[in-house]
Amino acid sequence: MKDMTLTIPTFQDMLDAHARIEPYIHRTPVLTSSYFNELTGADLFFKCENFQKAGAFKVRGASNAVFGLSDDIAAKGVATHSSGNHALSLSYAAGRRGIPCHVVMPRTAPEAKKAAVRGYGGIITECEPSTTSREAVFAEVQEKTGAEFVHPYNDPRVIAGQGTCSREFMEQTGGVDMMVAPIGGGGMISGTCLTLSTLAPEVEIIASEPEQADDAYRSFKAGRIIADDAPQTIADGLKVPLKELTWHFVSNHVTDILTASEQEIIDAMKLTWQRMKIVMEPSCAVPLATILKNKERFQGKRVGVIITGGNVDLAKLPWMAE
Amino acid sequence: MKDMTLTIPTFQDMLDAHARIEPYIHRTPVLTSSYFNELTGADLFFKCENFQKAGAFKVRGASNAVFGLSDDIAAKGVATHSSGNHALSLSYAAGRRGIPCHVVMPRTAPEAKKAAVRGYGGIITECEPSTTSREAVFAEVQEKTGAEFVHPYNDPRVIAGQGTCSREFMEQTGGVDMMVAPIGGGGMISGTCLTLSTLAPEVEIIASEPEQADDAYRSFKAGRIIADDAPQTIADGLKVPLKELTWHFVSNHVTDILTASEQEIIDAMKLTWQRMKIVMEPSCAVPLATILKNKERFQGKRVGVIITGGNVDLAKLPWMAE
Repeated sequence: MKDMTLTIPTFQDMLDAHARIEPYIHRTPVLTSSYFNELTGADLFFKCENFQKAGAFKVRGASNAVFGLSDDIAAKGVATHSSGNHALSLSYAAGRRGIPCHVVMPRTAPEAKKAAVRGYGGIITECEPSTTSREAVFAEVQEKTGAEFVHPYNDPRVIAGQGTCSREFMEQTGGVDMMVAPIGGGGMISGTCLTLSTLAPEVEIIASEPEQADDAYRSFKAGRIIADDAPQTIADGLKVPLKELTWHFVSNHVTDILTASEQEIIDAMKLTWQRMKIVMEPSCAVPLATILKNKERFQGKRVGVIITGGNVDLAKLPWMAE
Repeated sequence: MKDMTLTIPTFQDMLDAHARIEPYIHRTPVLTSSYFNELTGADLFFKCENFQKAGAFKVRGASNAVFGLSDDIAAKGVATHSSGNHALSLSYAAGRRGIPCHVVMPRTAPEAKKAAVRGYGGIITECEPSTTSREAVFAEVQEKTGAEFVHPYNDPRVIAGQGTCSREFMEQTGGVDMMVAPIGGGGMISGTCLTLSTLAPEVEIIASEPEQADDAYRSFKAGRIIADDAPQTIADGLKVPLKELTWHFVSNHVTDILTASEQEIIDAMKLTWQRMKIVMEPSCAVPLATILKNKERFQGKRVGVIITGGNVDLAKLPWMAE
């Protein structure tokens, strides 16, 4: 078996992914807001993956990985380590295929997150909150079950799946000048690059990142992957570093990376809830925060913004602490 | 000039309203949720007026009133007393027509509400927080300006405007067995009755009300208008009593009125935010709360639910006090 982590996914892989996952995902709506258009001077188009199955775009990549498995491999199930949207999405996709999904999570993870994974049918094995323990426990689970590992983003099947989002978007909007998405590990941005570099290579791809977790920004400037040790940001989906595959797309196809402060992210998040009436995660507010901060760059342009997910703890909203 | 308050609006009035207001309102989307379908055993269709201009369905009626005025009457502006969505909506519609909108509000109303009305161009005149003062100040404003009074719901132009919502809904869904909407003063329910009694008379119309402001429920059972003195409920859009025109529609066309407790309303609201990722007002959660409480009545049926608005104070969400 070839090492999947070293294969760059192709445009055809994305098309195959789309045909494969269409029965299991939503074609999420694109919303516009005259308020935000006036505020920014740009024509903004928000692709609402917060309305996606399992509450986030990650279900695209996870479903592609799960439904692309041969029956004999699938029978042993899938496995991952994540306490976020990838764990929910992989559990959802595995449930739809009727196979087990093993998730390794630190025992210290919030009960609400564990309950959400179990709610989608995921089987949790707890580890200690350290990389050593996580890797050891994960190896054990894989050894015992033979389950297929699906990395949250450094996996060609996952990136091909995420790429289906911009394909839908281009069909829904008839095209834009720029596309803005948050960057953490780089799965969504890589999928966007994969699709647009063939479908609409003239579109500028902008990645948005929290100042307090700006490893992708620094990697982009330095020309090599720089990984931070445990960055702290309200945009908790964006703490993870780039890996080989996502670095390939970022270094080859991203036009620029912009950053925003914690307060700018919180303000943009609150404003979106107030004016667009949608529930979205702090991570999704980073693109709008960077657009508001760099208006001159976006003025007069048609700009796509990917709202990546809506799984947020309603009892702990960031402006409650204000 | 005939007394508009005594004219029952007709189906043709609703069609005229729709043609008149279409340039100024959104055709809001209808969302579905497999989670809520499973939970209730019904096929639910949510008409999302929280995504409407000015954040609520009330802009339909307000726009119809404003754009239906002759030029000479319009020149003097419009006026109302409200501190809620009607004030925002009337200000928005007047702004679009380029005429003044006078709003009488108690000086004790939250600054955020005053700021929102001013944000849409409304001109506020403050009164003391009593009916006597409000009526006196309102009479003064009307005397001075000659502005046309637009009542929040007991006005045929407003009811005809609200009726456009179910017309869109029926086109978008291809029809339902039941339609559920919250009831306060009865403007939305009356518009729904107006439209469906001609367009789809077989559809059952259910009104949902907070137990703690159940004057419409008691009116319905008693066969005459019963008005409560200052009811207290988290669903603050639903505190006002029925009036002649809305009572006409409620008594003639509503199938039943169901009620829900404060906790049931809060639970339904939180669950909708969590699962559907939309921001909506407590009032909009009342229909879902009554459906969850009376599942057997809705099982196996196609059920429309009107999400009436999304203007909520994000710093004071009801579950924060839990």
